[in-house]
Amino acid sequence: MALKIEGVWPPIVTPFRPDQELDLEALKANLARWNTTGLAGYLATGSNGEAVFLSPKEREAVLATVVEHAAPDKLVMAGTGQESTRATIAATRRAAELGAHCALVVTPCYFKSQMTPTRLEAHFQAVADASPIPVLVYNFPQATGVNLGPESVARLSEHPNIAGIKDSSGNIAQLSEIVHLAREDFAVMVGNAEVFHPALACGARGAILAVSNVIPERCVELIQAFAAGEMERARRLQWAIARLAAMVTRIHGVGGLKAAMSLVGYQPGVVRPPLTIPGPEVVQELAAELTALGYQVSR
Amino acid sequence: MALKIEGVWPPIVTPFRPDQELDLEALKANLARWNTTGLAGYLATGSNGEAVFLSPKEREAVLATVVEHAAPDKLVMAGTGQESTRATIAATRRAAELGAHCALVVTPCYFKSQMTPTRLEAHFQAVADASPIPVLVYNFPQATGVNLGPESVARLSEHPNIAGIKDSSGNIAQLSEIVHLAREDFAVMVGNAEVFHPALACGARGAILAVSNVIPERCVELIQAFAAGEMERARRLQWAIARLAAMVTRIHGVGGLKAAMSLVGYQPGVVRPPLTIPGPEVVQELAAELTALGYQVSR
Amino acid sequence: MALKIEGVWPPIVTPFRPDQELDLEALKANLARWNTTGLAGYLATGSNGEAVFLSPKEREAVLATVVEHAAPDKLVMAGTGQESTRATIAATRRAAELGAHCALVVTPCYFKSQMTPTRLEAHFQAVADASPIPVLVYNFPQATGVNLGPESVARLSEHPNIAGIKDSSGNIAQLSEIVHLAREDFAVMVGNAEVFHPALACGARGAILAVSNVIPERCVELIQAFAAGEMERARRLQWAIARLAAMVTRIHGVGGLKAAMSLVGYQPGVVRPPLTIPGPEVVQELAAELTALGYQVSR
Amino acid sequence: MALKIEGVWPPIVTPFRPDQELDLEALKANLARWNTTGLAGYLATGSNGEAVFLSPKEREAVLATVVEHAAPDKLVMAGTGQESTRATIAATRRAAELGAHCALVVTPCYFKSQMTPTRLEAHFQAVADASPIPVLVYNFPQATGVNLGPESVARLSEHPNIAGIKDSSGNIAQLSEIVHLAREDFAVMVGNAEVFHPALACGARGAILAVSNVIPERCVELIQAFAAGEMERARRLQWAIARLAAMVTRIHGVGGLKAAMSLVGYQPGVVRPPLTIPGPEVVQELAAELTALGYQVSR
Repeated sequence: MALKIEGVWPPIVTPFRPDQELDLEALKANLARWNTTGLAGYLATGSNGEAVFLSPKEREAVLATVVEHAAPDKLVMAGTGQESTRATIAATRRAAELGAHCALVVTPCYFKSQMTPTRLEAHFQAVADASPIPVLVYNFPQATGVNLGPESVARLSEHPNIAGIKDSSGNIAQLSEIVHLAREDFAVMVGNAEVFHPALACGARGAILAVSNVIPERCVELIQAFAAGEMERARRLQWAIARLAAMVTRIHGVGGLKAAMSLVGYQPGVVRPPLTIPGPEVVQELAAELTALGYQVSR
Repeated sequence: MALKIEGVWPPIVTPFRPDQELDLEALKANLARWNTTGLAGYLATGSNGEAVFLSPKEREAVLATVVEHAAPDKLVMAGTGQESTRATIAATRRAAELGAHCALVVTPCYFKSQMTPTRLEAHFQAVADASPIPVLVYNFPQATGVNLGPESVARLSEHPNIAGIKDSSGNIAQLSEIVHLAREDFAVMVGNAEVFHPALACGARGAILAVSNVIPERCVELIQAFAAGEMERARRLQWAIARLAAMVTRIHGVGGLKAAMSLVGYQPGVVRPPLTIPGPEVVQELAAELTALGYQVSR
Repeated sequence: MALKIEGVWPPIVTPFRPDQELDLEALKANLARWNTTGLAGYLATGSNGEAVFLSPKEREAVLATVVEHAAPDKLVMAGTGQESTRATIAATRRAAELGAHCALVVTPCYFKSQMTPTRLEAHFQAVADASPIPVLVYNFPQATGVNLGPESVARLSEHPNIAGIKDSSGNIAQLSEIVHLAREDFAVMVGNAEVFHPALACGARGAILAVSNVIPERCVELIQAFAAGEMERARRLQWAIARLAAMVTRIHGVGGLKAAMSLVGYQPGVVRPPLTIPGPEVVQELAAELTALGYQVSR
Repeated sequence: MALKIEGVWPPIVTPFRPDQELDLEALKANLARWNTTGLAGYLATGSNGEAVFLSPKEREAVLATVVEHAAPDKLVMAGTGQESTRATIAATRRAAELGAHCALVVTPCYFKSQMTPTRLEAHFQAVADASPIPVLVYNFPQATGVNLGPESVARLSEHPNIAGIKDSSGNIAQLSEIVHLAREDFAVMVGNAEVFHPALACGARGAILAVSNVIPERCVELIQAFAAGEMERARRLQWAIARLAAMVTRIHGVGGLKAAMSLVGYQPGVVRPPLTIPGPEVVQELAAELTALGYQVSR
C-alpha cells in the first residue's frame, strides 16, 4: 500500500444554505482556503460532514466536489460506513469510482448488543475484501455505543486492504495498545483533539480532527512541534487548543463547529435540524477562544 | 383522533432470502398467519424489521405489502424516523401515501450529546405538524443512547397529531410517570416484553413487542388476563414469556427472533450481515422455551 | 423461619445535633411517632441512617435505642454489611446480641470489578452461616456499582438463613424474575418508592422506603389499597408519592429526606458533611409536595 | 511546602497470614526489599492495601510499621479518606501523629448522587484546613463512581495544604487539563499504569502504581527513560508493563497483584474475602508476563 496516511485531516463540514439545501459553492470556497494550509488530506462525508443527514445523491455530490477541488498534494478519504455490510460495500465502491483515495468505515451500531468482536471483524473483512481502495476502520464509542478492542484492530491490521484506524475514543491506553499490536505500517489516526498530543506521544501517525476545520494552522503546528522533538511547545499547543476542541465537538457539536468557522471567515452555512447553531453567548465564548489562539475574529 | 392504538402489535420482521434479497412472499405468508390471531396491528419497518438495513425502495415495498395484506381489523404503523427532521418528514408523508394509519418516529441519536429535550421536542413537533397521519414517539435509550424524559413526553402529548409513545426503556418508574403526566387519551405502548405486565399495571394501553412476532397468542392472552382482572394469571404469563423475550431481543437480537420464528413455522428468512442467525446451541434453548410455552417446535 | 417480613419499613434516619453528635432523644421521639402508624418494622443503620458516617459504637447505640423503643408489633432489622466478609459477620453477630430480629447485608462494592457472582454468593453464604438471625441481601446498584443477578438471588434463597432481599435497583424486570425464581416464602422487599406499586404487582411482599420516614401513612395506604385489589387507587397513590420519593432519594438524598421530615414535625436533625441540608428553594418544593399529599407543613 | 512528591510510589499491599490476620513481619520483609530500589516513597493503607478491610487499629499498625521501616530516602503517604468529613479529619490527624509525611484522601462516594463539585471541594478544604500534613486528593471514578473535574482540582490546588492529586481515571485529556490549570508546583501523580507514559508526556510528576509493588525496577526505568528524553525506550517500556498492569488491577484486582508478588519472591500473603487469589491459569499468565519483563519467577 503506497498511500501515506499521516498528518492532520479535517473531517470537513458540509455547508448548507439557509433553506437547508447543499451549498457546493461554499464548500469550494472552504477547500480553496484549506488548500493553502499544511493539512494532509480531507475526510468527506464523515460525522462532522453531517453524513447521516445527507441523501446518497448529496453524499456523492459532496465527495465529487472535494475530489475535484482538493489541491494535488491533499488526499481524499470518504466516510462510507452504513449499518449493513452490503450497503457499506456499495457505498465504498461508489466512493472509489468518484475518486476517493481511501474510505473510512464506522462500526455499525444500531444493534449494539449484537456487535460482538466476531461480527465487527467479519464486517470489516468483507468490506475490505470488496473495496477497490484502502479502508480505515473508525472507532467512536461515545457516538456509537460500540467499542472495537485492540485485539480486533490488530487482527484487522493484517488485512492488506485495511490501512489504518481513526480512534476517537479518547482512550489513550487503548490507542497505545493498538499502536503496539497492529502491524508496523498501520496508520493510527487520533480522532479526538483533547488527546492529540498524548496520542502522538503514544505513536499515532496523524489526526483527523473536527477542530482542524477551523484552526488547521495550529493543529499542523502542534504535529510539527512534536515531530521536531519540541515537547514543551507541543504540550502548550495542546492546552491552547483543548478547550476550543471540546466546544466544537462534545459540548456544542457540529453547530458549535460551524459557528466557530463562521467567526474566522469560512463558509459553513447552517446545520440541518434537529441540530441548531448555538446562541450568542456560546458564540462569544468561541470568539474568545479563537482570539486567544491568534485568530482574527469577525462577526 | 379516532385511531384506537391499543392491544398487542408485533414490530414485524422483514424476511430476506438466502441471497439477502427481500422476500415479500414470505412476508405475505407471515401476515396471513398473524391475521388469524388477536393482534391489534402491525408495525412495519421498525428496528426488528431491520429498517436500518433497507433501502428507501425496500422500505416502501415492505410497507405497501403490509398495508395490502393486513386483515381489515388490523391497523398499520410505519417506522419512519430518520436522523434529520426533513428526512423524517419526507418518510412520514410517503408512509401516509402508502396507506399507513400512523407513524412511529424514533428519537434521532447519531449526535447524542446534542439531543437536548428542546431539540428533540422541536423535532417531534415539526414532524407532527407536517404529517398527514398521527405520530407516535419512540423512546429506546438502550439502542439510541438518548432518553426522552416524561416532561418532554407530556408536552408532546398536547400536540393534536401526536397520538402516543412506544417506550422500550424498561424503566417502569418513567413509564408510570408518563401515564400520569400525558394527556388522558395518549396511547402509552410498552416496547419491552420483560416489563409487559408491570407496564399494564401502571396504565399502559398496549404493547409493541418483538416476541409477539413468534408467540402472538401468549402475548394476547396476557393482555386479556390483565383486562379481566386475573392478576395471578397475568403474572404467570409474564414469567412464562420473559425469558424468551430476553433471548429474542437484548440477548440474541433479530437473529434470535428469526431463529425462534422459524422453529414455530413462520418464514422470517435470514438476517443481513453484520447480524447473524445464532448457532444450534441457542436454537435448542429457544426451542425449549417455545415448547414450555405450549408451541409445537419443528426443526 | 417464623419471621414475617412484609409491609412498609422505613430505613430510619439517624438524628444528629447541630454539633454533628448523635441525638438519641430525637431518635426516640421519632420512634414514638412512627410507633403509632401502620409501619411493620424499622431498618436501623441503613444507607439512609448514614451508617457509613457512624462509628461502630454509634451504630450500636442507634440499634440498641431502636430495639428498646420500637413498639412490640414492630420488627427491627439492622444494616450490617461491611466490605470484608469477616467484618460483616462480626457486625451481624453484634446486631443479634443487641436484639435485632434480622440483618440487611449490602453487596460489598469497593472492589467492584472483582465482585463476581461467585464471590458475592460466597460472601452471603458465609455471613448467613455465621449469623444467629435471618439475613436479607441488599442490592442497590446505583449506589454500589454492583448488581446481584436473579440467578444468584435464587441460589441464595435456598439458604435456610437467608430470608429475603431488599431490591433498590428500580429494575422491575429483574424484581419480577427474582420473585419467580426464588423459593416460595422468600421476602422480596422493594427499596425504591418510584416503583412501589409495580413491584407489588410483580409479587413483592413489602417495601423498605426512605420516603416512609416522612409519609408512613401514605405508604401504608398504598400497600393496603393494593392488598384490597383497589388497583386504580393504588396507582393514584403511586403517582402522588413518586415525586416526593425522588426528591428525598436520588435528587436530594438524605439531606432532602431530613428537610422533608422537619417540615412535618419529625426530629431528624442535621446531616454530617460532606452531605448538606438543601436550601430554601428545595424546602419550598418539598413543602408543596407534602401539602399535596395531605400533610400539615410547618417551618 | 518543602515536600517533593514525584517518582514512583507503590500503593503497598497489606500482607495477611493464611488465617487472615495481619502479617507485619511479611510487610517488613517487603519493605526491606523495596528499600533497595529506586522507589520514591510508599503509600500505606490505600485501596491496594485493602484499607477498606482493615480495622482502625490495623490501619495504624500498618502505617506505624511502614514509617519505621521505610529507608530514610523514602517518603510515606497514608490513605486516610473516609465517608464523612469528620472521620477523614480524625484519620488524617492520626496518620500525622504516626509519622506519615502526607495523606491521600479519596473522594467520598457512598452517596454518589450527592457528591457535587461544591460538596467535594468543601470536604477537601475542610480536611486540608485541619490536617497537620500536606494532603493529596485521590480521584478514582472507576471505583467510586464519582469524578472530580479539572476545575475543582484547580481550585483545590490553591490551598496551601493541598499538595497534589493521584488521578487513577485513565482519562488523559482530564489529566492534561489538570496539569494545565493547577498551580505550578502541584504534584500530579498518575494512578493508572496503563497510561503511565502518556501521563508523563502530559506533565505528570510521578506515579502511584499497584504494579510497582511487583516490578518497581521497570517502573522506575520508565520514568528515568522519560526524564532522559528517550521517548522510544519509554514507549517500549510502557507496552511491556501495560498488560501486567491491567492484570493486577482492573482484571484480577488485589488478588492478582498478590499472586504476581508471590511469583517474584515478595511476601504478600492472602487477601481477605470476598476477594480471592486467582487460580493456576491466571497465575501462569502472570508468570509469563513477569518472565517477559525479565523477572525470575518461582512457584
